[in-house]
Amino acid sequence: MKLCDIPTPALLVDRQAMERNIQLMAAFFRGRPCKLRPHFKAHKTPAIARRQLAAGSCTGITCATVSEAEVVATAGVSADILIANEVLGPGKAMRVAKLAAGGADIKVAVDSSTAASELAEAVRAAAVEIGVLVDVNVGLPRCGIAPGGPALELAGQVASTEGLRLRGVMGYEGHAVAITDREAREAAAGYSMEQLLATARMIREAGLSCDIVSAGGTGTYDITGRIEGITEIQAGSYVLMDTAYAKLDLPFERALSLLGTVLSRPGPTICVTDSGHKACTEDHGNPSVKGIEGAFVLLLSDEHATIMLPADSPIAPGDRIELWPSHIDPTINLHDALFVLDGDEVTDVWPIAARGYPEQRTLLS
Amino acid sequence: MKLCDIPTPALLVDRQAMERNIQLMAAFFRGRPCKLRPHFKAHKTPAIARRQLAAGSCTGITCATVSEAEVVATAGVSADILIANEVLGPGKAMRVAKLAAGGADIKVAVDSSTAASELAEAVRAAAVEIGVLVDVNVGLPRCGIAPGGPALELAGQVASTEGLRLRGVMGYEGHAVAITDREAREAAAGYSMEQLLATARMIREAGLSCDIVSAGGTGTYDITGRIEGITEIQAGSYVLMDTAYAKLDLPFERALSLLGTVLSRPGPTICVTDSGHKACTEDHGNPSVKGIEGAFVLLLSDEHATIMLPADSPIAPGDRIELWPSHIDPTINLHDALFVLDGDEVTDVWPIAARGYPEQRTLLS
Repeated sequence: MKLCDIPTPALLVDRQAMERNIQLMAAFFRGRPCKLRPHFKAHKTPAIARRQLAAGSCTGITCATVSEAEVVATAGVSADILIANEVLGPGKAMRVAKLAAGGADIKVAVDSSTAASELAEAVRAAAVEIGVLVDVNVGLPRCGIAPGGPALELAGQVASTEGLRLRGVMGYEGHAVAITDREAREAAAGYSMEQLLATARMIREAGLSCDIVSAGGTGTYDITGRIEGITEIQAGSYVLMDTAYAKLDLPFERALSLLGTVLSRPGPTICVTDSGHKACTEDHGNPSVKGIEGAFVLLLSDEHATIMLPADSPIAPGDRIELWPSHIDPTINLHDALFVLDGDEVTDVWPIAARGYPEQRTLLS
Repeated sequence: MKLCDIPTPALLVDRQAMERNIQLMAAFFRGRPCKLRPHFKAHKTPAIARRQLAAGSCTGITCATVSEAEVVATAGVSADILIANEVLGPGKAMRVAKLAAGGADIKVAVDSSTAASELAEAVRAAAVEIGVLVDVNVGLPRCGIAPGGPALELAGQVASTEGLRLRGVMGYEGHAVAITDREAREAAAGYSMEQLLATARMIREAGLSCDIVSAGGTGTYDITGRIEGITEIQAGSYVLMDTAYAKLDLPFERALSLLGTVLSRPGPTICVTDSGHKACTEDHGNPSVKGIEGAFVLLLSDEHATIMLPADSPIAPGDRIELWPSHIDPTINLHDALFVLDGDEVTDVWPIAARGYPEQRTLLS
């Protein structure tokens, strides 16, 4: 299959650019005490995760959901899995226990005694043990227990709960990873990590174990990853990149684009492609137009991108236009396949195996 | 299965509210010259489309993509299919021809001679004929040829092309459907339809056939649907509704919600659920919180909704919260299943068969 044969809209992976990103990240962590735990949520694609691990400098895989962990384990990508998210709700803890029973060294983030109890009940029923990281809120208005005392108390509960093994702490400085000014980003990440490391110290001083201190993302891998005491970085986007992260001073290349076909040319400075927001999310802003000087996306609707063109543009119906997504994680989640290109040659069509909520596909009437 | 057993995040359909919406819409069109052609893109779910057709007052189904049309035809939902969108790019025209060869009365929107040629070549190769509607731009900055002369010229080309049968015109007043003020909405839709109807008259006066004049959406069904000469309305969202359309003076009920589980309760006025923007798009704004007075969504991230709560809220980890999506079409497109509820009982789990780009699933390595 050639580039020109791909039905649109479709996501294209520039294999060589992706490989360079993978090698660059592995090289950064080589010889450091801190390792990489690549985040599977960014691409949900076993074929990519395998390449990330093969490059070395990795501890295992980070997942955001139980179903991602199931795909990682089933595909044999890695047995060392961190679900860097709270696990609650019908069936979820039991599914984690099943993964442990199947041989996975699974670790789950926990920020409440309710979550700890649900997990403990399930793993005891399955006669297994799982690891737990206390999820510490380090500034992002999302999950995580308050650092210091509250986190220590929860760590104590976890350590004394049969079936749960306290492995350490995690704290995601998600409010810092996208700050474009490097000094400001360093300051925000540094302040967050002080709180996380102080909490880890308190836990150790209380005689509890705390081997893992997990944090970081693509925007802070070389900031947080250099801080003494941080043991692993959960970066994901670096492997394919997007326009939001491209605004930062990062060494990674954009390796993912969205191919569309021009459906309409309703005016001299306007064209419409079949790559709307069902194919490309806009939560980090409109995508950018690749390779056409002066062109920009005016608006995305469900099935269409309305693109403004320079007045002399020869673009015609049937032509193809590539867009750079502004946020790869949710954009990849809209598709079932990644078309992998070496030049114009499609060398692979990789399944995005963990797209969406795979458990739904097992429950259909 | 009960409501409490559903793994989250998950989309819930209130079956009774949906049925009332279907009946209400069918009643509006009963006895009118204008009919309904429900838009499949809104839900991509054959089980819903079947119910829409069974209620009567329908001509057939509207689709936005070739793969939607394939699902509609394969599932035996309807043989009368309008692809209300331009069809261009590798394999697309051939797939339309294949649908026609399989017995579907398929009609495609066309706004350029390039698209007409691609279709004609494919249908002639398959020795079939398909219908064509000239897609007229009536104000929305998207597809469609200019009304009047340019549309007439294209109609003439289509009529004289072997394999293509000119059936009429379509013009989507998408810029008007969401105007909350009814008078302003009527004015915008009215102006658009004047242009569409004037074009239809020109085509007929030139001795060409123009039986179908297709337009409209949920926001204009009872405006455009009352204008003499409009033969069918392409409404989709009415069947399940969303908060964007709920701002209008429409008689339809919200019948779709997103169930989430509370993962974290990091502060007295804040909770975090597992229903982020991978489960609920925000292109029409944040979703709303169902049934908790004063609560609102502060932000969606990939896997989380951060929700602000009243200070005295008893919400705890493990509790469930439903959100009302702001835009059903792309939100449903994120899921594989609709959980259909009669009260607390899950009566069906319907496959969202045309979710995403089904052709990708046939091309995987």
